Amino acid sequence: MFDVPSLDDVPDDLRERIDAVADKSGFVPEIFLTLARRPDEWRAFFAYHDALMDKETPALSKGDRELIVVATSAENHCLYCVVAHGAIARIRLKNPRIADQVATDWRKAELDDRQRAILEVAVRFAVEPWTITPSILESLRAHGLTDDDIWDVGSISAFFAMSNRLVHLTGTMPNDEFYLMGRVPRSS
Amino acid sequence: MFDVPSLDDVPDDLRERIDAVADKSGFVPEIFLTLARRPDEWRAFFAYHDALMDKETPALSKGDRELIVVATSAENHCLYCVVAHGAIARIRLKNPRIADQVATDWRKAELDDRQRAILEVAVRFAVEPWTITPSILESLRAHGLTDDDIWDVGSISAFFAMSNRLVHLTGTMPNDEFYLMGRVPRSS
Amino acid sequence: MFDVPSLDDVPDDLRERIDAVADKSGFVPEIFLTLARRPDEWRAFFAYHDALMDKETPALSKGDRELIVVATSAENHCLYCVVAHGAIARIRLKNPRIADQVATDWRKAELDDRQRAILEVAVRFAVEPWTITPSILESLRAHGLTDDDIWDVGSISAFFAMSNRLVHLTGTMPNDEFYLMGRVPRSS
Amino acid sequence: MFDVPSLDDVPDDLRERIDAVADKSGFVPEIFLTLARRPDEWRAFFAYHDALMDKETPALSKGDRELIVVATSAENHCLYCVVAHGAIARIRLKNPRIADQVATDWRKAELDDRQRAILEVAVRFAVEPWTITPSILESLRAHGLTDDDIWDVGSISAFFAMSNRLVHLTGTMPNDEFYLMGRVPRSS
Amino acid sequence: MFDVPSLDDVPDDLRERIDAVADKSGFVPEIFLTLARRPDEWRAFFAYHDALMDKETPALSKGDRELIVVATSAENHCLYCVVAHGAIARIRLKNPRIADQVATDWRKAELDDRQRAILEVAVRFAVEPWTITPSILESLRAHGLTDDDIWDVGSISAFFAMSNRLVHLTGTMPNDEFYLMGRVPRSS
Amino acid sequence: MFDVPSLDDVPDDLRERIDAVADKSGFVPEIFLTLARRPDEWRAFFAYHDALMDKETPALSKGDRELIVVATSAENHCLYCVVAHGAIARIRLKNPRIADQVATDWRKAELDDRQRAILEVAVRFAVEPWTITPSILESLRAHGLTDDDIWDVGSISAFFAMSNRLVHLTGTMPNDEFYLMGRVPRSS
Repeated sequence: MFDVPSLDDVPDDLRERIDAVADKSGFVPEIFLTLARRPDEWRAFFAYHDALMDKETPALSKGDRELIVVATSAENHCLYCVVAHGAIARIRLKNPRIADQVATDWRKAELDDRQRAILEVAVRFAVEPWTITPSILESLRAHGLTDDDIWDVGSISAFFAMSNRLVHLTGTMPNDEFYLMGRVPRSS
Repeated sequence: MFDVPSLDDVPDDLRERIDAVADKSGFVPEIFLTLARRPDEWRAFFAYHDALMDKETPALSKGDRELIVVATSAENHCLYCVVAHGAIARIRLKNPRIADQVATDWRKAELDDRQRAILEVAVRFAVEPWTITPSILESLRAHGLTDDDIWDVGSISAFFAMSNRLVHLTGTMPNDEFYLMGRVPRSS
Repeated sequence: MFDVPSLDDVPDDLRERIDAVADKSGFVPEIFLTLARRPDEWRAFFAYHDALMDKETPALSKGDRELIVVATSAENHCLYCVVAHGAIARIRLKNPRIADQVATDWRKAELDDRQRAILEVAVRFAVEPWTITPSILESLRAHGLTDDDIWDVGSISAFFAMSNRLVHLTGTMPNDEFYLMGRVPRSS
Repeated sequence: MFDVPSLDDVPDDLRERIDAVADKSGFVPEIFLTLARRPDEWRAFFAYHDALMDKETPALSKGDRELIVVATSAENHCLYCVVAHGAIARIRLKNPRIADQVATDWRKAELDDRQRAILEVAVRFAVEPWTITPSILESLRAHGLTDDDIWDVGSISAFFAMSNRLVHLTGTMPNDEFYLMGRVPRSS
Repeated sequence: MFDVPSLDDVPDDLRERIDAVADKSGFVPEIFLTLARRPDEWRAFFAYHDALMDKETPALSKGDRELIVVATSAENHCLYCVVAHGAIARIRLKNPRIADQVATDWRKAELDDRQRAILEVAVRFAVEPWTITPSILESLRAHGLTDDDIWDVGSISAFFAMSNRLVHLTGTMPNDEFYLMGRVPRSS
Repeated sequence: MFDVPSLDDVPDDLRERIDAVADKSGFVPEIFLTLARRPDEWRAFFAYHDALMDKETPALSKGDRELIVVATSAENHCLYCVVAHGAIARIRLKNPRIADQVATDWRKAELDDRQRAILEVAVRFAVEPWTITPSILESLRAHGLTDDDIWDVGSISAFFAMSNRLVHLTGTMPNDEFYLMGRVPRSS
């Protein structure tokens, strides 16, 4: 029900960032346009997103972060996030099956113990965050996560709790390109 | 489990904003310090917050916005948000009972029909956002809300879905001052 | 939808009890009037209430009993019980924050281990009583509760499962006085 | 885990009432003994019970009242109440199938429209009482219920919300006799 | 809403099987007729049913199998399955109370530890099968179940997840005879 | 935990059917092997499956039937069914996005009104079948479904309620081939 701004109408700083993404991906992901109705919120949204997602640590890779998005977004039936971040997860983890597995049944997905423990905590944050206790969080240390990694697990779940709801508010649909990304090995 | 930064250790722009809040309120709300562990996230968080909450429109007052926070945060058992934003709601709406009512049973609270319709949509966003349809959103127009107001209702619910989870992550407790604010008429 | 009897129309024994409460509190709590439509039920209700609540034991104080009411009534969104018994809890426990904490997130409230264990069992009684087992009940003995204390924990939860529903049936709203009671230290 | 008092040890007024029930039924229903650990609570419990259940009105018969008990107790997995009150329901309604039907799937039971509307409201009281609105209650008037009948529907649901939990607290099992009562036509 | 075929109209192989059941039971169980609208599905349904239910092993008797049906069907509010298989359970286990107990509150039923462990797994299969793990399944080995027994526990739960839904689809009601079967000792 | 039979060990009639599927698909879908531990159940399972799924009617195409499987299996977190039947749905409906959409958020998927009405009923069958009423079923007639089509909608939901649970019992994982099928247009 909300008009989607055209790329011509958005402020320059937004368009620059969007152009950069389009150059890299080959298309403009829909969420960049639907949220642009509100430039201040757009700036805060993507600044927050990048602070949490563009980061690689020994116990929480960029691919792991995408899996948190996929697993928690599936609980919220957020099609855009599952499909778009599922695509990135497949690419980063070089596994064409992992996104579908984590979206539908992370318990049976091709994960190691560390990843499974992370998703268990992340999904709990998504579904019943009031039951999270310090001892649940600290259990992740046994898998090598630092305090900052644990902060990231919780914050990514929290950020996408917001993001999923914004998608449902705006009715944003994933670009067609996302569905296939990372599924076929790049041919030589 | 996360160390809370002291005011001396946070970057200057954060401290300036925090000092301004403290000057106005008489104390530093805890969430300003616990989130300061991550300055970039702090900046995005408060920029987003202010874009949604520091706004008054004919059909969605600042007080109404606080009620959305209280109602949705109660569903997530978020003590900090219920108590801190409950205090602001009492002050803005000049009703010492409204926060307790909305936190426990918004259906029976002292609200007009417009406010009750808003909270019904907002709580649905908090609890099962995938069931939100355009026709549910558009029903708010009958109560005088514009498209931008409806965007705000959904976005405030979404933002506090994130905020509630960050509180549970960090174990942030409300300052003692919040509990009493707005309950006693300012004496002459 | 049900007419509330006036104090003049209730049987003498009810009025005497109500007058005594009013003398002590300074006002007539609403529930005493709305339930008076049915004097026999009124008598049974308050006899049962007093048998469970007007009792102090080493491991289950009067204040602890009020916390059980607040925590379980919050699960049932019972505004009257949360506000009225929250007021009594604040007074008995001399803690102006405790009722808001227990109503919204008892897991993070300023409680000792004994109190937290009690509320965990009480809330389970409120929400899914069929999962209560003897071993769950007996776990409270480790916190010093006697069999009679455990009986009281379960019975208070049970009694307010009824009471919460009677409030929803009758639409009883808390008296304005309750909201502030126990929040401000009695000035000298 | 709680000792069950023997009939010899209970106060005289309890024993008189229990003897009267035993004379009529041929056995002492277990709940009369398990609750007798607390004579004051016992007196309040049965006084309340009788005020709600021993009453026949044109739109809410004694049998209908038992159906409310069976349907709501089934939601709480309360074996004692389903079996004991199921027996009474069969007898009062002269239908040997009705209790099993209402306990398992009241929607498909052999009920008339009035009874089905009553059970729908009663079950809602049992499961999510905060969603009960005056308009839901008033819908029962279309089926001939008076305000007092509607009060009874809500109060019986409320009373057995308590009763079900007391059964789970005490682990009370139904007497063997109840299982068969009302299933076989009394032979001539 | 679906017409029930008469016995004359069903294919010969169905009628033969139905006649055999009628000869043994004295009546034609309704489900044999309502499903006969689709002979191929009927054949598959009863072939599957018999493969799972007509089997007796040391750790999973025919009576135990019926208890799985009763417990899981009660979760799905399937009146036909609870009443019909409850009758068979009473007969096979020679306990006139066991079906009502297991249908309403299997946790408190007159079961041994093995049976209780089986029902706990079976009910979990009925309600949230995605939480079943190999270690939950393997826990049944401690009670003497073989791998084939565990397969049967899961498969019976699965088969009646289908069967319960077919009953709700067709609105099949239990025959009157089932309600009383196994409740009265066969007189000499 | 259950050994998967090798193709050499299964009875001839199973192997013939499996070979035929392998010839057509190019691989043996895992479920054909895991269920072959029990040949009689295997025969009943696939006979039932084919009776419901290998059928095309004007108002319920083969592709529509696959969508029912995908939507209801997603509710049960059944990875095998979502991935395998999602592949078939993509092929039959010639839409490379439809399975991911229906699995994650059927409400927003690229469906016509008839398909959306079908999935709403089918998902209700999967999640709370006891709330299905004749009027809900009959509402599908407005979309052109015949009684037999409605029977199929309910029966497919019911059959996969069983199938999903068998997958969780056996831990069956989808073949790698399914993930990509129907996503890329067949090149000329």
